[in-house]
Amino acid sequence: MKLRSLRSPALAALLAFVAGTVTHADEGMWLYSAPPRDQIKKKYGFELTDAWLEHLMKSSVRFNSGGSGSFVSGDGLVITNHHVGADDLQKLSDETHNYLKDGFYAATQADEKKCVDLELNVLQSIEDVTQRVNAAIPVGATGETAVLARRKVTAEIEKESLAKTGLRSDVVTLYQGGAYHLYRFKKYTDIRLVFAPEVGVAFFGGDPDNFEYPRYDLDVCFFRVYENGSPVKPANYLKWSVKGAQDGELSFVSGHPGTTRRLLTIPELEYIRDNQFPYQLALLKRREVLLSNWGARDTENARRAREELFGIQNTRKARDGAIAALQDPEFFGAKVAAEAAFKKQLADRADGKDALAAFGRIAEAQKAIAAIVTRQRLLEGMVAFNADSYGLARHLLRAGDERPKPNGERLKEYSDARNDSFEQQLFSDKPIYPDLEILTLSDSLTYLVEQLGVNDPIVKAVLAGKSPRARAAELINTTKVRDVAFRKQLYAGGAAAVTAAKDPLIEVARAVDTEARSLRKVVENADETKQQAQAIIGKARFAIEGAGNYPDATFTLRLSYGPVKGYEEDGKSIPAMTTLAGLYERSAKQGNKGDFELPERWLKKKSALDLSTPFNFVSTADIIGGNSGSPSVNRAGEFIGLIFDGNLASLSGDFGYEDKQARALSVHSAGILESLRKVYEVPALANELVNGKR
Amino acid sequence: MKLRSLRSPALAALLAFVAGTVTHADEGMWLYSAPPRDQIKKKYGFELTDAWLEHLMKSSVRFNSGGSGSFVSGDGLVITNHHVGADDLQKLSDETHNYLKDGFYAATQADEKKCVDLELNVLQSIEDVTQRVNAAIPVGATGETAVLARRKVTAEIEKESLAKTGLRSDVVTLYQGGAYHLYRFKKYTDIRLVFAPEVGVAFFGGDPDNFEYPRYDLDVCFFRVYENGSPVKPANYLKWSVKGAQDGELSFVSGHPGTTRRLLTIPELEYIRDNQFPYQLALLKRREVLLSNWGARDTENARRAREELFGIQNTRKARDGAIAALQDPEFFGAKVAAEAAFKKQLADRADGKDALAAFGRIAEAQKAIAAIVTRQRLLEGMVAFNADSYGLARHLLRAGDERPKPNGERLKEYSDARNDSFEQQLFSDKPIYPDLEILTLSDSLTYLVEQLGVNDPIVKAVLAGKSPRARAAELINTTKVRDVAFRKQLYAGGAAAVTAAKDPLIEVARAVDTEARSLRKVVENADETKQQAQAIIGKARFAIEGAGNYPDATFTLRLSYGPVKGYEEDGKSIPAMTTLAGLYERSAKQGNKGDFELPERWLKKKSALDLSTPFNFVSTADIIGGNSGSPSVNRAGEFIGLIFDGNLASLSGDFGYEDKQARALSVHSAGILESLRKVYEVPALANELVNGKR
Repeated sequence: MKLRSLRSPALAALLAFVAGTVTHADEGMWLYSAPPRDQIKKKYGFELTDAWLEHLMKSSVRFNSGGSGSFVSGDGLVITNHHVGADDLQKLSDETHNYLKDGFYAATQADEKKCVDLELNVLQSIEDVTQRVNAAIPVGATGETAVLARRKVTAEIEKESLAKTGLRSDVVTLYQGGAYHLYRFKKYTDIRLVFAPEVGVAFFGGDPDNFEYPRYDLDVCFFRVYENGSPVKPANYLKWSVKGAQDGELSFVSGHPGTTRRLLTIPELEYIRDNQFPYQLALLKRREVLLSNWGARDTENARRAREELFGIQNTRKARDGAIAALQDPEFFGAKVAAEAAFKKQLADRADGKDALAAFGRIAEAQKAIAAIVTRQRLLEGMVAFNADSYGLARHLLRAGDERPKPNGERLKEYSDARNDSFEQQLFSDKPIYPDLEILTLSDSLTYLVEQLGVNDPIVKAVLAGKSPRARAAELINTTKVRDVAFRKQLYAGGAAAVTAAKDPLIEVARAVDTEARSLRKVVENADETKQQAQAIIGKARFAIEGAGNYPDATFTLRLSYGPVKGYEEDGKSIPAMTTLAGLYERSAKQGNKGDFELPERWLKKKSALDLSTPFNFVSTADIIGGNSGSPSVNRAGEFIGLIFDGNLASLSGDFGYEDKQARALSVHSAGILESLRKVYEVPALANELVNGKR
Repeated sequence: MKLRSLRSPALAALLAFVAGTVTHADEGMWLYSAPPRDQIKKKYGFELTDAWLEHLMKSSVRFNSGGSGSFVSGDGLVITNHHVGADDLQKLSDETHNYLKDGFYAATQADEKKCVDLELNVLQSIEDVTQRVNAAIPVGATGETAVLARRKVTAEIEKESLAKTGLRSDVVTLYQGGAYHLYRFKKYTDIRLVFAPEVGVAFFGGDPDNFEYPRYDLDVCFFRVYENGSPVKPANYLKWSVKGAQDGELSFVSGHPGTTRRLLTIPELEYIRDNQFPYQLALLKRREVLLSNWGARDTENARRAREELFGIQNTRKARDGAIAALQDPEFFGAKVAAEAAFKKQLADRADGKDALAAFGRIAEAQKAIAAIVTRQRLLEGMVAFNADSYGLARHLLRAGDERPKPNGERLKEYSDARNDSFEQQLFSDKPIYPDLEILTLSDSLTYLVEQLGVNDPIVKAVLAGKSPRARAAELINTTKVRDVAFRKQLYAGGAAAVTAAKDPLIEVARAVDTEARSLRKVVENADETKQQAQAIIGKARFAIEGAGNYPDATFTLRLSYGPVKGYEEDGKSIPAMTTLAGLYERSAKQGNKGDFELPERWLKKKSALDLSTPFNFVSTADIIGGNSGSPSVNRAGEFIGLIFDGNLASLSGDFGYEDKQARALSVHSAGILESLRKVYEVPALANELVNGKR
């Protein structure tokens, strides 16, 4: 609960940022196409050369499932966080092998285990396509017309690029619609698991210590990328620094921050504070209790629920931190004051009128969303249908309806460019557990009834006269969508096959689909209005503040930087580094129990370890969720650590940057090496890191 | 999640009950003043004599903190559940003694530990005062006038009775206002702890196994009642049955069921289903996550939060079960049909008009509550101020304002008759932990902001320009209400002293008080309207259905009955009894971990035990929350078991009785004895039970 004490120091920073100075200190999640060369040169005397940047960019890996990583050997070895790989560990596990809990090591290449449906992307090039996108939108077009026009031109650009280069091609929206860039990725889908430690040390301290510092987590996981049955030989990979991060040294982080909302207007922030986050938190806590309780009934239940439960707890803690920032009158007041100051600057300029009007349109669009969002979340957002089976059922239904349409007119997840990724998801044979599906679907149908009432026509159609529990059991027990062959057959057969199947769960999705689509349209149109308005405001902001800014995070590759550096908290000095000794101390203090219970191997090998080895460290680099697994590198571009978390103070980072207390947390490269050599005794893997090859 | 499968069997029962047959099977929580003599004689051939009833009544003990118990020796020994005594165990514990977790045994009388603020009541007599209460209410009076008139006459009756008999005297409302009875209790406030097992075996299986069966819990706790420094010698106590409950035998339960809502009208049930329970569940889950997470950070945190967390999880599970029943179209449809049928009967009768009109007034009153309930819960219900310190602050404020008023005009918790109990609570020196207070107050102030918005005048007054976290820390750190001497001084000094103290937390209570009181008045008036209307409906129901009914539960002493009997579930037969062997099996299957970890003593003594000894058993007796700790007795009036829970199917019991699957759970008297002798090796206590004296 130290969450709030950081607000005052953050304040000056935030004010300065929003009101004009653009960036300060080590702020920023920079585009590789517009890196902060001047700032870094000026402050640190270091030159970001094109070669240095290209090497880091092409060594960086995006986990399509939502995370970052990097190549760390010329034989295709990729490092990321255990919690990024956890989803894949879970999918490879079964009732007899729990790789998530017990860890995994492939002693030989033949032992490396192919992941069920993991896709990795490596960015190859960035192209500015803003003009082409904007030109395709009819002058004065708003709402749906503009959405469709943009979707059409975006799909065209992506398809052309894919055809021309063979690379995954995504048009990404930057600066709230101020710019559109075409990102081309080398895409890999044959990814094999090499090494994972036990979750007990990867996530030591569990949810209780999550977002806390000091920390002691070996949150690492290694994969190897294959192509045509053999490991790839990447031209770019990061050299491993054996001594690793040094206190005070400048570090860089290259990764994929997911979302920030630093340039939102006040009505949008108010909506997040008063509606979106409270709503999400209530739902997260509801699901956390549901899964915790079910997991506690039986050890196998616990294994099945673990991964989702972690995600829920993680987001819950982050949202609690964010809402604390937004409810702080000082923090929020600063944002209000900054917007007022900016608006005043606009009012003083001849060309400021459009931007001021744009603020009004955003407020209106936000109201339009608020008016329907309860139903939209339940039906389109599938909050009422919390079961993987339902997601599959709806995909089958919609794919049947969407695929025959022209590419540009489809819902975007069914576009040609996304086809491969979509099919990999749809045909994934990851395990789905009917008992867990019934549990979560029962609960979410109960929530549906609570929200809309028993007499709502949709509720009646969905429940068909049964109780939520009985209906959930019936639907999950009778649907065939958990059978991959059935899904393939329906997908191949299109809408006619889907209709003919009369699958009860697909029929529920159908009963909801008309309203769900129309609600989606309302939100998409409002988002489009906001995006267009944001683009106008963004341009005006550039006109006033000059260039050299960075856009809000969008799960595209970014470069952050800042020194390895401790901080003060409640008058206490928190050093930048922890050591392996600290791990054993924290465990002992909590009785080596629960989330603080060390794997047996760690207890046995304690005496073999150099306990003074650095284990985790913090830097001021500007990161956020999605950066998990990002490499921390030094000036030489060497791997010195692995980003895995932020501290509590960093939870305001969604809305602004501060460097007094907010810190990015990394696993230290020396700590990783010491663990691999002395605890896991896997010299081949350790040597591959040090030598850059097997 | 087997919760729903019971609805269909329950249906016929429920329909029959509400529509007219009044009771069936072994239904009923009967008044001692109107016991079900005929039913029991007819079905079981057993005569409930006056002497038998009086003996059981005067052997029964009410835990004023919310639970039941009974005298089991002539030396004042009382048995109840561990979870009923848990609150007292917690209050007696500190950072070095954790009696809740580790258990307690007083080897000698001198070792018996005086509870901090526990009050026990033993019912001595019941007097019908309906006529006097009704006569005191002016003809045609409604709303506040009637509330005040009833409060006045109630306070008079209670005060007179107290003066005349020296007994605690409570006027209780029965049959939804159809009757008023004066209950006189012998009151004991010097209660000493004798024995408690470890929570690990008392609450074996924890929240996961709560409300489940089969079960294996030693949920017992022994106290001794003192008066004038010596153990009391009760004329009535229960003889201990060494062989205990037998499968199939008729059992009786004498205890204090808290609340049932079996006679509510449909609009009231709809309100519970659509508003009250979803609201409570969201709040409970929010608090469960808050306390679980805080407790997981540190073992001492866990100890401090444990008791409240248990209460939350317990209620949460019960509410989830109840809402499942209410959302079941079949279950709820039956209640709707039954009410419609009853209304039709009324419409067919000349004297039915008043009752029909009363239904309408209830619906209107329910709407009046719904209109203001969000603010009422936050401000008067103190949901916005979740900290013991705040409760004390408000009591000081209100006591200062209320005590000078005539007895009959005060808010009821400040009446003369409740004075002793109130002061015992107010001056209790149970530990209050500032860090936990800050945690819960921060969270509840955050909830206040979420619910009312940052611009609400009350929110602004409460937060005083600070964030919820900062304000909570400031209030908890600066208030003096945690100092008992300070509370005594302010209470003695009255309103002037309270005002002069300028205590920041009391001032917050003051800032809220005008609105809080006016919201309370709205609810009280609506409740009064409902009560009057219910009384009219109740009278009409008697006219149609005849006498011999039992009122909804009201935390007054009731007699239930039914055989010891297993049941069927999902086609599987669940036997009535579990054994000590089952305890060890369940623990082993879950790796003897977490909620399934047995205390070391139990592991060591396993071989000494007769593992075939019955441990827990079920009966069809009609019970509900508040019955915890009630004795199960046989025809001979002997103690054969200790009620401690109901199974999942019993969670619909709030709204109706069924006996196909719903069961009351007891700890078996033989299992208790075997545990005391062989595991705890406390022959003195075991012998006292068997001999009825020390």
